[in-house]
Amino acid sequence: MVDTANRAPAIGTAYPKIDGIDKVTGRARFGADIHLPGMLHGKILRSPHAHARVLSIDTSAAEALDGVGAVLTGADFPLLPAGTAVRIGAMSLDLYRISRAVIARDKVHFEGHPVAAVAATSPHLAAQALDLIKVEYEVLPHVLDEVESMAPDAPVLHDDLFTAGLGETPNTPSNVALHLEMGRGDVDQGFTDADIVIEHSFTTEAVHQGYIEPEAETAWWRPDRLTVWADTQGIFGLRAQLSAFLGVPLSFLKVIPMEVGGGFGAKSALRLSPISSGLSRKSGRPVRTVLSRDEVLRATGPGVKTTTAVKVGARKDGAITAIDARMVYNAGAFPGSPLAGGTLVGFSPYQTPNLRIIGYDVVTNRPKGASYRAPGGPPITFAVESVMDEIAEKLGMDRIAFRQKNASKTGDRGPNDLTFNRIGFEIVLESARAHSAWTSDLPAAKAGGKVGRGLGVGYWRGGTNTSSCSLTVQADGSISVVIGSVDLSGARTAFAQITSDEFEIPTSNVFVEMGDTDTVGYTDGSGGSRVTYVTGAAVHNACRSALEVLRVRAAASLDVTPDVVDYAQGVFSARDIQDRQVSLLELAQASVRGAGVISVTGTASGMEPAPAFTAHVADVEVDEDTGKVQILNYTVFEDVGRVINRTGVEGQIQGGVAQGIGWALHEEYVFDKDGRMTNPSFLDYRMPTALDLPRIKVETVEVPASDGPYGVRGVGEVPIVPPPGTLANAIYDAIGVRMDRLPMSPQNVFTVSHASERTRWLSMDDAQTGGSTTVAGVDIPNDE
Amino acid sequence: MVDTANRAPAIGTAYPKIDGIDKVTGRARFGADIHLPGMLHGKILRSPHAHARVLSIDTSAAEALDGVGAVLTGADFPLLPAGTAVRIGAMSLDLYRISRAVIARDKVHFEGHPVAAVAATSPHLAAQALDLIKVEYEVLPHVLDEVESMAPDAPVLHDDLFTAGLGETPNTPSNVALHLEMGRGDVDQGFTDADIVIEHSFTTEAVHQGYIEPEAETAWWRPDRLTVWADTQGIFGLRAQLSAFLGVPLSFLKVIPMEVGGGFGAKSALRLSPISSGLSRKSGRPVRTVLSRDEVLRATGPGVKTTTAVKVGARKDGAITAIDARMVYNAGAFPGSPLAGGTLVGFSPYQTPNLRIIGYDVVTNRPKGASYRAPGGPPITFAVESVMDEIAEKLGMDRIAFRQKNASKTGDRGPNDLTFNRIGFEIVLESARAHSAWTSDLPAAKAGGKVGRGLGVGYWRGGTNTSSCSLTVQADGSISVVIGSVDLSGARTAFAQITSDEFEIPTSNVFVEMGDTDTVGYTDGSGGSRVTYVTGAAVHNACRSALEVLRVRAAASLDVTPDVVDYAQGVFSARDIQDRQVSLLELAQASVRGAGVISVTGTASGMEPAPAFTAHVADVEVDEDTGKVQILNYTVFEDVGRVINRTGVEGQIQGGVAQGIGWALHEEYVFDKDGRMTNPSFLDYRMPTALDLPRIKVETVEVPASDGPYGVRGVGEVPIVPPPGTLANAIYDAIGVRMDRLPMSPQNVFTVSHASERTRWLSMDDAQTGGSTTVAGVDIPNDE
Repeated sequence: MVDTANRAPAIGTAYPKIDGIDKVTGRARFGADIHLPGMLHGKILRSPHAHARVLSIDTSAAEALDGVGAVLTGADFPLLPAGTAVRIGAMSLDLYRISRAVIARDKVHFEGHPVAAVAATSPHLAAQALDLIKVEYEVLPHVLDEVESMAPDAPVLHDDLFTAGLGETPNTPSNVALHLEMGRGDVDQGFTDADIVIEHSFTTEAVHQGYIEPEAETAWWRPDRLTVWADTQGIFGLRAQLSAFLGVPLSFLKVIPMEVGGGFGAKSALRLSPISSGLSRKSGRPVRTVLSRDEVLRATGPGVKTTTAVKVGARKDGAITAIDARMVYNAGAFPGSPLAGGTLVGFSPYQTPNLRIIGYDVVTNRPKGASYRAPGGPPITFAVESVMDEIAEKLGMDRIAFRQKNASKTGDRGPNDLTFNRIGFEIVLESARAHSAWTSDLPAAKAGGKVGRGLGVGYWRGGTNTSSCSLTVQADGSISVVIGSVDLSGARTAFAQITSDEFEIPTSNVFVEMGDTDTVGYTDGSGGSRVTYVTGAAVHNACRSALEVLRVRAAASLDVTPDVVDYAQGVFSARDIQDRQVSLLELAQASVRGAGVISVTGTASGMEPAPAFTAHVADVEVDEDTGKVQILNYTVFEDVGRVINRTGVEGQIQGGVAQGIGWALHEEYVFDKDGRMTNPSFLDYRMPTALDLPRIKVETVEVPASDGPYGVRGVGEVPIVPPPGTLANAIYDAIGVRMDRLPMSPQNVFTVSHASERTRWLSMDDAQTGGSTTVAGVDIPNDE
Repeated sequence: MVDTANRAPAIGTAYPKIDGIDKVTGRARFGADIHLPGMLHGKILRSPHAHARVLSIDTSAAEALDGVGAVLTGADFPLLPAGTAVRIGAMSLDLYRISRAVIARDKVHFEGHPVAAVAATSPHLAAQALDLIKVEYEVLPHVLDEVESMAPDAPVLHDDLFTAGLGETPNTPSNVALHLEMGRGDVDQGFTDADIVIEHSFTTEAVHQGYIEPEAETAWWRPDRLTVWADTQGIFGLRAQLSAFLGVPLSFLKVIPMEVGGGFGAKSALRLSPISSGLSRKSGRPVRTVLSRDEVLRATGPGVKTTTAVKVGARKDGAITAIDARMVYNAGAFPGSPLAGGTLVGFSPYQTPNLRIIGYDVVTNRPKGASYRAPGGPPITFAVESVMDEIAEKLGMDRIAFRQKNASKTGDRGPNDLTFNRIGFEIVLESARAHSAWTSDLPAAKAGGKVGRGLGVGYWRGGTNTSSCSLTVQADGSISVVIGSVDLSGARTAFAQITSDEFEIPTSNVFVEMGDTDTVGYTDGSGGSRVTYVTGAAVHNACRSALEVLRVRAAASLDVTPDVVDYAQGVFSARDIQDRQVSLLELAQASVRGAGVISVTGTASGMEPAPAFTAHVADVEVDEDTGKVQILNYTVFEDVGRVINRTGVEGQIQGGVAQGIGWALHEEYVFDKDGRMTNPSFLDYRMPTALDLPRIKVETVEVPASDGPYGVRGVGEVPIVPPPGTLANAIYDAIGVRMDRLPMSPQNVFTVSHASERTRWLSMDDAQTGGSTTVAGVDIPNDE
C-alpha cells in the first residue's frame, strides 16, 4: 500500500495538521468529551473573599440532597507535611503549597480559592448543592500589589512562609518567598565607566493565557486503580503531582491525555484532577469537573504581574558597561512566580562585564500565577528593551546597530554563567536591519495620528529533559509512532514529517498517536519549546533504530553484510550488485509472517539547550487624542534552527505575537477594593481579536542548533517576548513618550503622555540587597 | 513505592485476575459499551429463506424515514474478484467468499444471511426502517445435511465453487469445496495384518460457542481514518480482513480491542465490523451495531456438524495395524470447515504404520461455521475414541493400557508427518491409570440407573505465529506492559505474573494493558492456545531486554562491568564487592532525570508448537427408562507444560470440559423443513447449566515444552476434545450401548439403546478416493 515513488521531502513543507480534520469537524475529544457510565458532575465552591480564615464548613445539607454523590473539603485529602516536594524533570515543586492552592485548608488566600466540592448527577444539581454548604469566614485584610506586599505592615498571607535565599532562614514570616541575587563583575564600577546611564522602573499587569478550552478533567477511582482523563500539558508530571497529593503510589494512577484546547503553560499545574479524584473516591463513581470561563479567569493561574527597575550604563561607542536590575514578581497567593526564568529571558540577549540582578518572588491575595509562554520573560524584556532603546537613541546610534554591538554570540555566557552553544542572534539582527520592514519609509499617518517604528528583541533558552516514543513498522510498511508528549500545537504532524523523511515514505503512511502513562515511556511535559526538539529527537532515534533492524534483515535477505545495504525510497539494495534488492514492504510483510515484529522505542534525554533569539519590528499609529494604538505592520525575524512544518512555525510565531500584543496593549486583571476580580469574562477581559491584529509577517532564520536532529530549535515561546518592548519603542517613535506600564491601553497611553513627570514605581535603593541565592546553573522549568 | 522484600514467586500461584474487579463490578468496557457523539445504531435485515435468489432490494422507504442515517446493501461494498485472499499469520483466508458471507450479493445461502442494514438514531427506529425494506426473493431448494449435500442431485449453493484437492479443477460446480487425502503406509495390508477390525460411522450436530456477549462493534469512518472498536479475538487479523474487504489501505484502519465476553474461536471471523463501517461511511456518523441472541444463534458461526467413519485394525497384543477414516465436515453456507484441524486432533494421539484419512469440506444451507475451541477436534475424537475403546474391550485389554501401547511419544510423527517435539502423553496416561478416578470402585447406582466409567483422550497442536508487546520501567520502578493480544481468559494476569517473577517485584507493581493496532506491534489473534505461549514469550523477552538495559546502567553506577552485576529482588549489586549496590527504584528514578527512559519491545515468532495431550475419566449414571445421562465424577489429566496461573489453568480446563459436555450431551441446532432454525434462544438451545455439571477435577502434569519460557504449553483448547468420547465410553460401560451420534441427549440415548441395529451413516465405500491434497506440513490455523 506504500507508494514511495517520486516522493518529495516532508520536512520544511507546510504539511497540513494531521489532527486538523478531527478538530475542525468537532470529532477530536477534549477534556469535557468524556462520558462514562454512572458519571457524576463535579462543581467547586470558591471563596468570595480575597483573604479570610475559614472558621467552619457545614456540608450536611448538601450531602443530604438527593442526587449528590459526594461532598468534599480540604480535610478529605492527606495533610502533607511542610516541605513536601515532588521532582519533575529538573524542577522541584513545592507540593505542600500546591496542595493548599488546590483546595483551602484553614485559610483562603484569594477570591475563587476552592473551599469545597460536590459531585452530583447533573451540573445543575451540583450547583444547587454548593448553595447548601455553609462556610463561616473571618475576613482578613488583603494585599494585591507586589510592592505593597513587601512592606513591613502588609498583611501576612502565610504564617509559615519565610524568605528563602538570604542564607539563613529569617524567623519572622514574610510575603517575600524568595530573594534571588545573581550577576558578575562590579556594577558600580561599570556605571562609573559609563558615558550614559539610563534607569527606569516599569509595571506590568497579570494577564491570562486565554486558552479556548476551560479546564475539564475526569477521574474514576476504582478499588484497584485511579484513571484520570486529563486536560494537561504533561501526563507524567500530572501523575507525579497527583500521586504525591493523594498519597497513592505512582503506579496506582493512569493518566490519559485528551486533546488540549490551549495551555500555554497554565495546564501544567495541578488544579482540577485532585478534586475530581477525591469526589470519585468518595462517591465510587466517575466524576467529571468542567470549569466555567468565570472560574478560569478568577481562579486559574494568569501570567504574573510585576514591578521592575532596570539601569543600564554605556560608553559613547555603544558598549554596555553595566546592567543593574530589580525584579519584583507577584506570584499570587502561593510562592512560585517565574522569576528565575525572567532573569534568563531578560538578560541573555546582551553582554556586559558587570551585571547585577536582584529579584523577589512575592505572594499577594491574587490567584496563584501559572506559567505563561516564555514564563517571566515579557515583563522584564519590556523593561530592558525600553531602556536599551533609549540609550541607543541618546547615543545617536541606529537602534539595531546598538544591539548588534552588545549582542550575545556563540560561546558567550548568559546571566547564569552558562555558555551559549550555537546561536543565531547576530544573523537575526542582520536580517532585520537589512529588511524593508526596518529600512522602508514609515507609512503615512491618518489625520490626528502619528506613526512610529519600534524594534525589540527576545530570547528563550529552549527546554530539554526527557522524552520517549515507540515506533512500529506495520505489515503494510506503514509506520505507527506513539509519543509520550501531549500534542499542543502540531507535534503529531511534525513527527509524521520526520518519520516520513527518515523512511522516505509518504506522510500519509505514518500515524502518530499520543500514549498514556501506561503505554509509553516517561516524557516530560509539553512546554518550554521542548516537544519538537526533544520528543522529535526521540522519534528520530526510533526511526534510525527501526531502519537499522530493517537493514540487518535486508542484508540477510540479500545475502550481503548490513554495511553494504543502501536504503532509499522504500527499497533496500545491495551496493554495487545489480537487481539485488528487497522492499520495505516485503520486509514489513515478512515481519508478521515469522521474521519477527519490528517495534522499537526511542528516547532522548540530556540534550543541550537550543536557544532561540528573535527580533520584532512594528509600525504603529497612535491617536494622541484617545491614546489608542493601532499596529500597522508587524514583522518577526526568528532563528528557528530548522523549519519542520512551515505552517506550524508561522502559526506558533503568529500566535505568540498575538498573545504578546494582548499583553502589551489590551489585557489586565482588574480588582475591586475587596480584592474581587471585576472583569472575569471575555466580554470585559479584553483579549485582542482578529480586528485588532495586523498581518504578522514571519521571516525565519535557520542557524542549526548544536544538538538534536536537523538543527531544529523550539519556536513556541520566544515570539511572545518582544511585543511589549517593540510596541513601547514604536509608540515612543510616534509620539515621543516612553511608556512605563502595561497594558499600553488608550487610557494608560493618554495618562502617561499627559503626565508632567514619570512615576517612579521602584528605585534601585528600595530593594534590599545582600541575599545569596543565584540561579547560576539552574535548569529553567520546562513545564511552561 | 516498590516493596520487594519477602517476595514469593508469582508463577504457579492462583493469583487473582487483574481484570477481575472491573469485570465483576460492571466497569469493564465491552463492545456494546461504546458511546460516541452523534452515534447511530445499526441493524441488519436478514434472509428469511435458507436458499434463495435475491431479485431486487428496494430501500427507498427506509431511506426516507426520519432519523435514518444510512441504508446499505452488498452493492455498497467493492466487488471482490474470485480468489481474493488475505493472509493472516500462516493462514490464507478466502475473502471473496467471506465478503459474501458478511452480506449477500445475488443469493442468500442461509436463514439469517445479511441482506441489508440500516443505521438510525435509535435501535427501535432502525428496526422500524428494516421493515420498510422490500426484498424480492426467488426461493430455491435447500440442503442442510453434509452427506445429502454431496449427492449428485443436491441443490448447488455456489455456481462458481469447484472442488479443490482433486489435482485438476473439475468443470462442474459442486458443494464439496475441498477433497483432502492424507496418510502413510498401506491401510489395506494393515487391515489384512490385523486380528481385529472395528468400523463405525458417527454423526455430530452443529453447536454454538455460546459466549455470553453477543457481537457488538462500532465503527467511525472519518475522511482520514476509520476507527473500529472491535469485539474480536485478534485486532490485526480483523484489520487485515476489513482492509481487504473495504478496499482501503491497512493503515487507514485503527482497530481498538474491547473486552471480549467470550469468543472461543467464533470472534476471529469478519462479520459485523464491515456493516458498521459501511453504515458509518454512508452516514458520516459513528455507528454501533449490536446483535441479539437470536441473531447470534441464527447467523454467527457454530462449531460444525459432521459425519465421519473410522475403521481401526489391531493385533491381539494391542498394536494398531491400520487406521482408515472418512470425514465429512459441514462448513455451512460457505467453504472452510476445520477439516484439516480435525485430522490432526483426531489422529495425533495414536501411532500406526498405515493411515489413510479422506476428508470433505461440504457447503450446506446453514450458517457459515466458525472456529470453536480446538476446531474440528471433538467430533472426530468422539469417533476415534469410541472405536479405540471398543477394540480395547474386545481384545480384553485395560483401556488405558491399550492406549499406552499405541500412544504417540516425543520424536514420533503425527498424521501430517511432522515430528512431535517434547510431549507428555505417556505421563498423562500413566497419571490417569494410577489415579483413584480410574482405580476406585464405581459409585453406587440409584434405583433404575446404571453406572459406568469411561476414558477418552485429546490432543491439540498448540498455536504459534507472531506476538509483540512493549514494556516500560516507570519512574517508581513499576512496570507497564502493553500487549498486542486480546485478553480472553487471563492473559494480562499471567503476563503480570511473568513480569513480576522476571523482575522479582510484587505483581501489584506490574500493569498489563491491551494495545490497539496503532500502539503495539503486530500480534496474531488470540486463539489456538497461543497467547500464554507466544505472547508470553514476547513478554518474557521484553523483561529480559529491560533487565539488560538496567544491568548496564547499574554497572556504570557501580563502576564495574555488566557481567559482574547480579540482580535480585529489586537490587543490582556488584559481585563480590560488599555494600556496592543500586536499586531498581534508583535506576528507575534516574531514568526520568536524564539517564534515559527504559522502554523496550518484545516479540516472539517462529516458535515450535507446544502440543498438549490430555486424558479424561468420567463416571456416569444412565437412566435406561428416559435415556438421561447424569455425570457423577469427572477428572482431567492434562500436560500443561508449566502452570503460570493455577486458577487460570483450572478455569480454562473446567470451561473447556463444560463446553465439551454441552456438545456431548445437550446442544444441537434444530431446523424446520424450510431450513429455519427452530431453537434460536438460550431457552430452547440447551447449553448445560451449573446444575447439569459435576465438579470437574483437574490434575495437571508438567512436562516442559521444548521451546519458549518456563516450558509452558497452551491449555485452552484441548479440554473440549475428549468429553464426547469419554462420556460415550462411560455410557457403554453403564448400559452396553455404543452411541453413534451427538448429542447423547435422553431422546438419542433412548433411541439408540432401543434400536434393533446400528444405523450406518457413512461407509468407507461411500466416499470417493483418489484426491491428491494432503495437509502434510500445513500450519493449522491459529485463529480459533
